[in-house]
Amino acid sequence: MTAPDDRHAAWRERLHQIIFEADTPAGRTFDVTLLVAIVLSVLAVVLDSVGYIQASYGPVLRAAEWFFTVLFTVEYLVRLAVVHRPLRYMVSLYGLVDLIAIVPTWLALFVPGAQTLLVIRALRLLRVFRVLKMAGYLREARVLGAAVAASGRKIAVFLGAVLTIVVIVGSLMYVVEGPENGFVNIPESMYWAIVTLSTVGYGDIAPNTPLGKLLASFVMALGYGIIAVPTGIVTVELANAARATVVTTQACPACGRDGHDPDARHCKFCGAKL
Amino acid sequence: MTAPDDRHAAWRERLHQIIFEADTPAGRTFDVTLLVAIVLSVLAVVLDSVGYIQASYGPVLRAAEWFFTVLFTVEYLVRLAVVHRPLRYMVSLYGLVDLIAIVPTWLALFVPGAQTLLVIRALRLLRVFRVLKMAGYLREARVLGAAVAASGRKIAVFLGAVLTIVVIVGSLMYVVEGPENGFVNIPESMYWAIVTLSTVGYGDIAPNTPLGKLLASFVMALGYGIIAVPTGIVTVELANAARATVVTTQACPACGRDGHDPDARHCKFCGAKL
Amino acid sequence: MTAPDDRHAAWRERLHQIIFEADTPAGRTFDVTLLVAIVLSVLAVVLDSVGYIQASYGPVLRAAEWFFTVLFTVEYLVRLAVVHRPLRYMVSLYGLVDLIAIVPTWLALFVPGAQTLLVIRALRLLRVFRVLKMAGYLREARVLGAAVAASGRKIAVFLGAVLTIVVIVGSLMYVVEGPENGFVNIPESMYWAIVTLSTVGYGDIAPNTPLGKLLASFVMALGYGIIAVPTGIVTVELANAARATVVTTQACPACGRDGHDPDARHCKFCGAKL
Amino acid sequence: MTAPDDRHAAWRERLHQIIFEADTPAGRTFDVTLLVAIVLSVLAVVLDSVGYIQASYGPVLRAAEWFFTVLFTVEYLVRLAVVHRPLRYMVSLYGLVDLIAIVPTWLALFVPGAQTLLVIRALRLLRVFRVLKMAGYLREARVLGAAVAASGRKIAVFLGAVLTIVVIVGSLMYVVEGPENGFVNIPESMYWAIVTLSTVGYGDIAPNTPLGKLLASFVMALGYGIIAVPTGIVTVELANAARATVVTTQACPACGRDGHDPDARHCKFCGAKL
Repeated sequence: MTAPDDRHAAWRERLHQIIFEADTPAGRTFDVTLLVAIVLSVLAVVLDSVGYIQASYGPVLRAAEWFFTVLFTVEYLVRLAVVHRPLRYMVSLYGLVDLIAIVPTWLALFVPGAQTLLVIRALRLLRVFRVLKMAGYLREARVLGAAVAASGRKIAVFLGAVLTIVVIVGSLMYVVEGPENGFVNIPESMYWAIVTLSTVGYGDIAPNTPLGKLLASFVMALGYGIIAVPTGIVTVELANAARATVVTTQACPACGRDGHDPDARHCKFCGAKL
Repeated sequence: MTAPDDRHAAWRERLHQIIFEADTPAGRTFDVTLLVAIVLSVLAVVLDSVGYIQASYGPVLRAAEWFFTVLFTVEYLVRLAVVHRPLRYMVSLYGLVDLIAIVPTWLALFVPGAQTLLVIRALRLLRVFRVLKMAGYLREARVLGAAVAASGRKIAVFLGAVLTIVVIVGSLMYVVEGPENGFVNIPESMYWAIVTLSTVGYGDIAPNTPLGKLLASFVMALGYGIIAVPTGIVTVELANAARATVVTTQACPACGRDGHDPDARHCKFCGAKL
Repeated sequence: MTAPDDRHAAWRERLHQIIFEADTPAGRTFDVTLLVAIVLSVLAVVLDSVGYIQASYGPVLRAAEWFFTVLFTVEYLVRLAVVHRPLRYMVSLYGLVDLIAIVPTWLALFVPGAQTLLVIRALRLLRVFRVLKMAGYLREARVLGAAVAASGRKIAVFLGAVLTIVVIVGSLMYVVEGPENGFVNIPESMYWAIVTLSTVGYGDIAPNTPLGKLLASFVMALGYGIIAVPTGIVTVELANAARATVVTTQACPACGRDGHDPDARHCKFCGAKL
Repeated sequence: MTAPDDRHAAWRERLHQIIFEADTPAGRTFDVTLLVAIVLSVLAVVLDSVGYIQASYGPVLRAAEWFFTVLFTVEYLVRLAVVHRPLRYMVSLYGLVDLIAIVPTWLALFVPGAQTLLVIRALRLLRVFRVLKMAGYLREARVLGAAVAASGRKIAVFLGAVLTIVVIVGSLMYVVEGPENGFVNIPESMYWAIVTLSTVGYGDIAPNTPLGKLLASFVMALGYGIIAVPTGIVTVELANAARATVVTTQACPACGRDGHDPDARHCKFCGAKL
């Protein structure tokens, strides 16, 4: 004999499982459906930004925008209702993104032009990373994630060093080239330094004086080495991550040595059964 | 006493060997001859697109085009005649490419201008990859191929993540810079994001506002890390592939399985002495 | 009973510890405070270079400039007073940087315009690298530093080879393209070669003739290989550095030396059991 | 009692040692002196190409040109006189470069304007690579050289595949974008494909149509993977080369196992003396 309250709680728990967890068939279906809705809603925003599509299909895109806004609003309210700690969800990254994805449309009812902020709905695509975890790509995503996480501190040191170089190089180029050659102030020169060190090289700002070109050549030679560092870091971490998952930590019961392949059934050193 | 039918079948089998297989001298000769014909036909198309060459050697190039079209048409019909499953060949990648390489010239007899599609004949160059397998470069091609194949899923996860970042960055830049600075719509902004993240940096679209340049600087710093990932993946897989070819030389005398490490003294599957 | 001289020496020693060493709490506090002051002073210089900020906050920035100049002048004098070998400090890299960071402001009292040299104060940011050593990032910085140091000679050979290629390619492009296509002289052509080989590609100078474009294509194919070399060098050194830190944990109980491989059972120097 | 002939032969042999070999003090001195002369002569050519330097120092540079031409002519004749197989030297790479470095100046006596070819004297800088072998950089140069040589075939397969992709992509972009957007013919489109795949991205040619930009985006994503391949190849080969020189091939006389560090004095497995 379940009281209405109990039934309500069970129902809430069931919804929580579907919406916040991914290891039941219903949860998986919900996640994939939500992802499809997000992709479609982003597609509507993207198409709406293209002039001639907007001219032809404006009303359809407008309807889609309202449809997805209502859908995501309902989803947001249900999430608030069933989550165990509503406040914590509201201030979490996903909670904030879920909110700012629906605010602009409602806001546009009162503030004209608020709608242009609708494009930040694209941030909801971040859920892709959550759904990725679920699919068969789990292991690949984990290896990549572990490599990036293990490199975190090294990359922080590296970015700090690069930023220092950018400020110094930017200041020097501002003195050498000056505003008359496009290096109008130091932040602009630092922007040029980043564009050059990352080897992007738009060419909207480029040195004109011989001394500036000489200095830029040194910066590019430095860029060679600099771009090699994150590549090296990630490669080494990927190699470590790959090795960790490939070679088991199992030791031979007879001779005690390890380093066996996962498919090994006998010790490769003494022949004992593993 | 072979009946005409038998003789016909034997002749067909012989042609099949020559055209579709590469391990007989005749098959090898056919493949190389075909590749030379393809390269020459593509060269004719390439030269024909250059104004002043076309003006001087137009008739010669026209004759070459018809020569190769007839040649490739005969080749296509013979392939259809001798292949075991004609329909399967017709809808295969190579079958479709073989067909669309000859259609434009014939079509131009009825539809004026269809000839401009002739350049897609360049797709037949894909056969280079098939012929590569044959030559002494087999091992190198296999190592590269194995590395790319083993990286397939990791690269899929990676491209998915990059595409998500591209949509988000493209939307943000569209809001920040807007149509007046060249970011005319979101697809255009996404194109800019790809050009920047890949460090190509044409400079046909570039940020103009201080906020846009700051955001672009973050995107470039992100691009540093992003370009490091495929390099790391391919390097690790190449290292694995190289190691794998070192490993597989010795087969176990007891159970006949291979894949032993260089330092193994006992078979890792049955425990017999190596 | 400490004579005034003794007390003076002790006080000087204490200041030396605080200013030049980083392993006492006071020394650490001093380094961090100094770094904050440097960052703020550089920020003031950077903001001062932006026209509209300078127009609004000119007096504030001017006051900040004098505040930091006086602060750094006092710091410089104290350093000179307490350091053991003042002359050696004055001609060291950090000593010179400390000096040229304060000279421009004082000089501007006599020479109008000397102030534009103030931006070289950004060089003081080099102290970031000194402070980096101190924080928890010590190990990461050491691994990166060891990798770069170990690669030093290989990178020198590499840069020598690249410079040779740059001169040769620059000379050839100057002959092929000539001044009428933007390759106005050989140094300019060498600048183009560096911009191209580093894959920066501004596009301010680009080949126009068919032969120049063909040559440029070869240079870019070469650039593929060239950019791979420093990446490879740094990756291998990073892998070695990472392995070295795994290895050095265990010291031999007999001879006390370390650096043993993880699979070592006997000391590789004296043969004792580990 | 040495006959004049003998003395002549001995003298010739001595000169051969000095000029063609590098392991005697005299040979080393000669190589370094020659390299300095080459660098100075190239510097003279480089400076001569800069308009305002040529205007001021024209006569000095002219004298330097004649000085180095006579010097290199004498060197060339002496090389011919003492080398064991003069014809073989004449048609070797270095022999041809030595010759074309002196021809333009002499030729300019008869053919006006031949002097502009003088810049190819920069090719003599290739001797840097020969001298590099000599100096203390021997080991580094050998490791780099071994890595490049071992990667040779893999790189050949790779460049073949890239060239095929370039032709196909170039043809497709020519159809999609057409001459009105700067893709004036297929070679020009192929040039664009190379500029894009190598991530140089000048921006002198860039897609304008939506379809062209979509295709270009795919090419850039492909470029991600393509640029990773040579990096991976070189990294793996460098790691192999480094390992080969670091781990000795010395086997333990007691237990027969190898893989010892170069500084090991005892077997790390059984403790026996190496």
